[in-house]
Amino acid sequence: MDDEPIHVTVWGEYRHEQSHATVANIYPDGMHAAIATGLRQDLGETVEVGTATLDEPEHGLTQKVLDRTDVLTWWGHAAHHEVADDVVDRVQKRVLEGMGLLVLHSAHYSKIFRRLMGTECGLRWREAAERELLWCVNPGHPIADGLGEYFELPHVEMYGEQFQIPPPDELVFISWFEGGEVFRSGCTWTRGKGKIFYFRPGHETFPIYHDVNVRRVLANGVRWAAPSSSAIYASGGRNITTPLAPITGDHEVDTSLH
Amino acid sequence: MDDEPIHVTVWGEYRHEQSHATVANIYPDGMHAAIATGLRQDLGETVEVGTATLDEPEHGLTQKVLDRTDVLTWWGHAAHHEVADDVVDRVQKRVLEGMGLLVLHSAHYSKIFRRLMGTECGLRWREAAERELLWCVNPGHPIADGLGEYFELPHVEMYGEQFQIPPPDELVFISWFEGGEVFRSGCTWTRGKGKIFYFRPGHETFPIYHDVNVRRVLANGVRWAAPSSSAIYASGGRNITTPLAPITGDHEVDTSLH
Amino acid sequence: MDDEPIHVTVWGEYRHEQSHATVANIYPDGMHAAIATGLRQDLGETVEVGTATLDEPEHGLTQKVLDRTDVLTWWGHAAHHEVADDVVDRVQKRVLEGMGLLVLHSAHYSKIFRRLMGTECGLRWREAAERELLWCVNPGHPIADGLGEYFELPHVEMYGEQFQIPPPDELVFISWFEGGEVFRSGCTWTRGKGKIFYFRPGHETFPIYHDVNVRRVLANGVRWAAPSSSAIYASGGRNITTPLAPITGDHEVDTSLH
Amino acid sequence: MDDEPIHVTVWGEYRHEQSHATVANIYPDGMHAAIATGLRQDLGETVEVGTATLDEPEHGLTQKVLDRTDVLTWWGHAAHHEVADDVVDRVQKRVLEGMGLLVLHSAHYSKIFRRLMGTECGLRWREAAERELLWCVNPGHPIADGLGEYFELPHVEMYGEQFQIPPPDELVFISWFEGGEVFRSGCTWTRGKGKIFYFRPGHETFPIYHDVNVRRVLANGVRWAAPSSSAIYASGGRNITTPLAPITGDHEVDTSLH
Repeated sequence: MDDEPIHVTVWGEYRHEQSHATVANIYPDGMHAAIATGLRQDLGETVEVGTATLDEPEHGLTQKVLDRTDVLTWWGHAAHHEVADDVVDRVQKRVLEGMGLLVLHSAHYSKIFRRLMGTECGLRWREAAERELLWCVNPGHPIADGLGEYFELPHVEMYGEQFQIPPPDELVFISWFEGGEVFRSGCTWTRGKGKIFYFRPGHETFPIYHDVNVRRVLANGVRWAAPSSSAIYASGGRNITTPLAPITGDHEVDTSLH
Repeated sequence: MDDEPIHVTVWGEYRHEQSHATVANIYPDGMHAAIATGLRQDLGETVEVGTATLDEPEHGLTQKVLDRTDVLTWWGHAAHHEVADDVVDRVQKRVLEGMGLLVLHSAHYSKIFRRLMGTECGLRWREAAERELLWCVNPGHPIADGLGEYFELPHVEMYGEQFQIPPPDELVFISWFEGGEVFRSGCTWTRGKGKIFYFRPGHETFPIYHDVNVRRVLANGVRWAAPSSSAIYASGGRNITTPLAPITGDHEVDTSLH
Repeated sequence: MDDEPIHVTVWGEYRHEQSHATVANIYPDGMHAAIATGLRQDLGETVEVGTATLDEPEHGLTQKVLDRTDVLTWWGHAAHHEVADDVVDRVQKRVLEGMGLLVLHSAHYSKIFRRLMGTECGLRWREAAERELLWCVNPGHPIADGLGEYFELPHVEMYGEQFQIPPPDELVFISWFEGGEVFRSGCTWTRGKGKIFYFRPGHETFPIYHDVNVRRVLANGVRWAAPSSSAIYASGGRNITTPLAPITGDHEVDTSLH
Repeated sequence: MDDEPIHVTVWGEYRHEQSHATVANIYPDGMHAAIATGLRQDLGETVEVGTATLDEPEHGLTQKVLDRTDVLTWWGHAAHHEVADDVVDRVQKRVLEGMGLLVLHSAHYSKIFRRLMGTECGLRWREAAERELLWCVNPGHPIADGLGEYFELPHVEMYGEQFQIPPPDELVFISWFEGGEVFRSGCTWTRGKGKIFYFRPGHETFPIYHDVNVRRVLANGVRWAAPSSSAIYASGGRNITTPLAPITGDHEVDTSLH
């Protein structure tokens, strides 16, 4: 297991980069390409990184691609509704089986995140290029590896509470914004065997994915979310008629309902 | 708030009771009627209990009914797929707004529970009329009020791990089964403002809902799940352009993407 | 249970109020008196509120007082080390048995809080009369009842992360501070049957306990932390030689070690 | 970091093995030696394993030993009270700084575990050589790696609920016992930067530490609990007078209390 690289698929909506010069200037090959490059540079031989985008057939997420993906990262913004439901089904199933999922920035409103959370995942936002400080509240967590007490992003889109998510299993970062808001910016959940990490930074009009700390967190997130257990995931309804220990009752059972 | 009764709606699939003599003998008016009667007896003036069933128009869960419901209890088994998706949408929305939800026994596979959990909610089961001991592992929880270290059900359908749910916020009961399995039988989650309680006991061919301890837990669950906060639930995406604190940055913002 | 008032004991160090004019001006009868008055006004007949202070015999927390206390609130600052260990033992035991505990502001460093948490409970602080916004991230929680998305305190002592506590069971408030920090300001834990609520605001040189929202949270906290379950708390090591189900093994047991 | 082995110290009380023939027959060199051998065999070059026992000077846990320990495993039973408080202080400090801790079987009553939990950590027990089935309820957790839905121990001392611990951060195993009890047998917590894993199996009169699944779990536990983050752990009270963002208030601050 230790010698096999982590197979990462970086998914991007890849629309703004083609339609808006501001975005294209920052991310000439797309945000997904910048994220993929960052992971390759930070994680080296320990990862094998591919990309996939919305406008590819099946959004680039065929069963074959997903089957060999250990960790999927997801960035979407304006076209969440264009993601096909059967692809969402497929991704959800793979997460439950153990594929890691990194949900980035505006993907808080993606179909797959809302599906896995069961809530609406709304939030408060403002686009004013304001300052953000991300405080680490769980320094022993592998996702925090290498960081200080906080790190700073000078100009960001603000996301503020209430963030309508289920209580995270683990809270790693809390953001402070110049304009007065706070946000649970680094949150983890387990669904089935899959590990999910939501990470807030990442707006398309700021060079967030070139920031060294953001890249570090993404690299840490990939390593953390990679499958780390081969234990059996017992799936579906299982009618186990033979007990493991003797049942001594003499009660009559009406099984006609099944 | 304290003088207003808790408005409870007991929802039942109400099919087995009409098609199977075994079930009809135990629950002549339906399981939902037995549950409703139990709540009325245990909680008296503090609740107002109505019922709704699958074959009523809109399954008895019109917007009007849901709007006045504080706590909804849900029992389904063989006809989960017959529940209309727009009713599920409506119930989910009300839970997020604060309506409590008690998910009973085979409703682990209901659309609404799977929707709110984001997982498949499968489990291991066996119909052998075996013995169950329910151990209380969280004695300070209001749902455990009045109980001992454990209580017993002499003849039950077994549900065993792995139960494919997200880690519960709180674990109240763990079941022991004669045949060798264990189960997280009393679990709570928060989704939006809503409190959710899953409670395992309740098979249609055993008189579970006449059991004094089961009824006690249901009554406790209703009281626990009833809305207890009038705080604002900030819903949807909120574009808040006016900050609460001054933003001093001079960065130019490209808002053309919104 | 419903007609009996909640018996609250408000504990205060009560030293600064006697030695510093600034504090005495804000709290002429002590902070504990202001807190007690607030609870009586907000909760009326549903509570019976007493007070106790450090310099009373046994710090006012005799076994008799604790035995009739449902919820204890604790404010200390400069004299944590003067609290006798046997009183701390006594309070801890009562919490495990079900007494609620509200830990206020600088009591983060109290012996009882550190004892119950198992961590050092340190934090970052600054006394600059800066602005604080407290954001509610769990609006369905009873402690948030009656609040908006956030509330404001104009001049406070800052407490910032990292706050060295165990991950809270529930996170209710996150604070934003003018100077750049954030803080988990409203946290709950369960220890034994007891419910614990840490609430950040409360410095002695600001009139925090006269603030309407702070008082509301304290009142909500008292109601939430009050015992709500009479279930058995099984305490100590219990050698239960008689099994509940037959043990069929024929293995020889060497019990000479006990 | 990846090439450096994990430094493990296996601590054992090492008394029963010297005083009781039954125990000596199973563990001729002590339980700690059997545990250490198991870890070396399962983890090979990735660990460096030492041992320490109660009757060594400072219980073998000098500051020097602890400073180079990444993961400490702890087994004690009859002599918990003989462990010196200053050694407990030292171990606690190292856990908060990031050292992993595996708490084994009867060490539920050790000073260090009770210190870190803040509760009494009692449980129900019976020595009847009964059968135990350990069910995995969190198959994606690294501690479950390689396991099936459950594994079996044919003859064990029973530990039953209520187990008086704080709600675990993660629940990995639940045990079923022949005599009717259940138990949260695999639990994790975070305290400071340190990861703590309690694992139930391990009585001195049964060859538990020779069992292949138990050894697997211990090896998994060591890998999971090893430090995985170099992030800053901000310790103690920190008076940070210089803010990160401008404070514009004109309120006068009385700092005479500090």
